[in-house]
Amino acid sequence: MTDEKLIGNLIQELKRGTITLSVLLMSEKPAYGYSLVTEMQAAGIVVEQNTLYPLLRRLESQGLLRSSWDTGESRPRKYYSVTDEGRSTAERLGKEWRRINTAMSRLMEDK
Amino acid sequence: MTDEKLIGNLIQELKRGTITLSVLLMSEKPAYGYSLVTEMQAAGIVVEQNTLYPLLRRLESQGLLRSSWDTGESRPRKYYSVTDEGRSTAERLGKEWRRINTAMSRLMEDK
Repeated sequence: MTDEKLIGNLIQELKRGTITLSVLLMSEKPAYGYSLVTEMQAAGIVVEQNTLYPLLRRLESQGLLRSSWDTGESRPRKYYSVTDEGRSTAERLGKEWRRINTAMSRLMEDK
Repeated sequence: MTDEKLIGNLIQELKRGTITLSVLLMSEKPAYGYSLVTEMQAAGIVVEQNTLYPLLRRLESQGLLRSSWDTGESRPRKYYSVTDEGRSTAERLGKEWRRINTAMSRLMEDK
């Protein structure tokens, strides 16, 4: 019998790093939290709001994203966009991802 | 200026889940800790002993690996091998990995 909670955690672990990379790639044009959730979902990367929102704040505090408020709408929205440092970090992570992917694909083909 | 420590942590985060999956795939035949480190390295998945050893113990306590001691050699060695539950977990994770990979590849091509 497989433990669904355990598998859920392992899948979460598998996704975590790719969510960070996706956010950096997708905030090339300013985006607010909920728009990122739906854009990522459309791209096949399912992320919950309660995972994404703390991540956005963390990436901002790390200097990889910056934010600004748009108060022009009836409801003010916080827009995030990638910084230069975030962009170069995304490039490094993307390279690493390709490297990992080559190794994993080979490993899984062998099975 | 990019912060090397931060990038190191993000790369670690990106790799973490794939290391678990690799271990499950590579312990189809019994393997001891150090042999896994070198086999994984040869396959392009770099993992430190102090990352792998606690992971092996964790996967054993989760029922995904089992272990047995080989005392035939001058130095006793603990061999790990995947359990049925570990094998079905690896299948699920492998599917998830392919799904993530399709999404990420598309995302990175767009950039």
